[in-house]
Amino acid sequence: MSLEALEKLTEALSRLPGIGRRSAGRMAVKLAAEPDRMAAALVSALDQVRREVRFCGTCGALTSVDRDPCVYCTDAGRDHTLLCVVEDPADIDAIEETGAFAGRYHVLLGRISPLRGEGPNDIRLRALIKRVREEGVREVVLALNTDLEGEATAGLVRALLRERGVRVTHPAYGIPAGSGVRFADAVTLGRALEGRREA
Amino acid sequence: MSLEALEKLTEALSRLPGIGRRSAGRMAVKLAAEPDRMAAALVSALDQVRREVRFCGTCGALTSVDRDPCVYCTDAGRDHTLLCVVEDPADIDAIEETGAFAGRYHVLLGRISPLRGEGPNDIRLRALIKRVREEGVREVVLALNTDLEGEATAGLVRALLRERGVRVTHPAYGIPAGSGVRFADAVTLGRALEGRREA
Repeated sequence: MSLEALEKLTEALSRLPGIGRRSAGRMAVKLAAEPDRMAAALVSALDQVRREVRFCGTCGALTSVDRDPCVYCTDAGRDHTLLCVVEDPADIDAIEETGAFAGRYHVLLGRISPLRGEGPNDIRLRALIKRVREEGVREVVLALNTDLEGEATAGLVRALLRERGVRVTHPAYGIPAGSGVRFADAVTLGRALEGRREA
Repeated sequence: MSLEALEKLTEALSRLPGIGRRSAGRMAVKLAAEPDRMAAALVSALDQVRREVRFCGTCGALTSVDRDPCVYCTDAGRDHTLLCVVEDPADIDAIEETGAFAGRYHVLLGRISPLRGEGPNDIRLRALIKRVREEGVREVVLALNTDLEGEATAGLVRALLRERGVRVTHPAYGIPAGSGVRFADAVTLGRALEGRREA
């Protein structure tokens, strides 16, 4: 099948996180085969999101147009001295699901990537420094990706915050739940051993 | 995050093949976070597909509005006495990729499913019988899913075609390439043993 419209849709779908070219192709065929039930519903949902969803002007989380600052920023039950820094709005959902964090968030909306020409001014770093200074933040948890670019970003943020006297932490590195030593890669296992705790 | 618009988009995405609720949620957040680069591109691609892509009036494959019958039906190099019956247009792509089939196709656009109340009149079965009668088809390959509903559908199609004197075949069942006996489920393995060949 080499229909131009299907190719274009496959291309647009394969840019979504976790979607390879092959499953994007299957999704495109399905959407073409069910124009009313599936494609029209998706178009309408996308339009609604574009009309109603915005980034929170304070923390960068996704919120609705009529709720800025967002629910996290305005929740009086949260510890305002504790701030968790993440790369992407989706990271917040993952952390909220754990129920293990009671502070607020700051979304960088990106990461430093010399390869893609993205530097400190392309992420919400200045806004983070400003918040830390103005909002009485005492501890910043850097929950960034544990890959090269995430670590480069973490290094810079840590340096900038430490010179301002803020405590900077990161979540523990180690072996994931439901896994085991023999399934872990060497870097993960090395970090898990360095960070070993009393049993 | 419980934004109604995001929920609706997650719902629409999770109806796509192979997309679970969790990855649909991640995709929705990504689309909301990149309204112009990702969401707008997807909407435009979906609109183009809805304008330009149709089912072939003969075989049911996807084709462009200005090309009906489709490329498979009009390809003089294909064996017109050999017809492969599939459930879904995406099945054709999978078969074409193998390069192992030189006949034409007939897409049922569904399957018989008593549970979902879908019977013989809900799939393109009458059109199949008509084609077999009028186009001089001698062999029909039933490439339907190897699950319960696929087999119920195959059983009916086989019965209807055999009483019209057509040869009905199906692709071999067996152990997939790159796998092995100890990875196969009992049904697959049983079929592979029944269908054993000279080594």
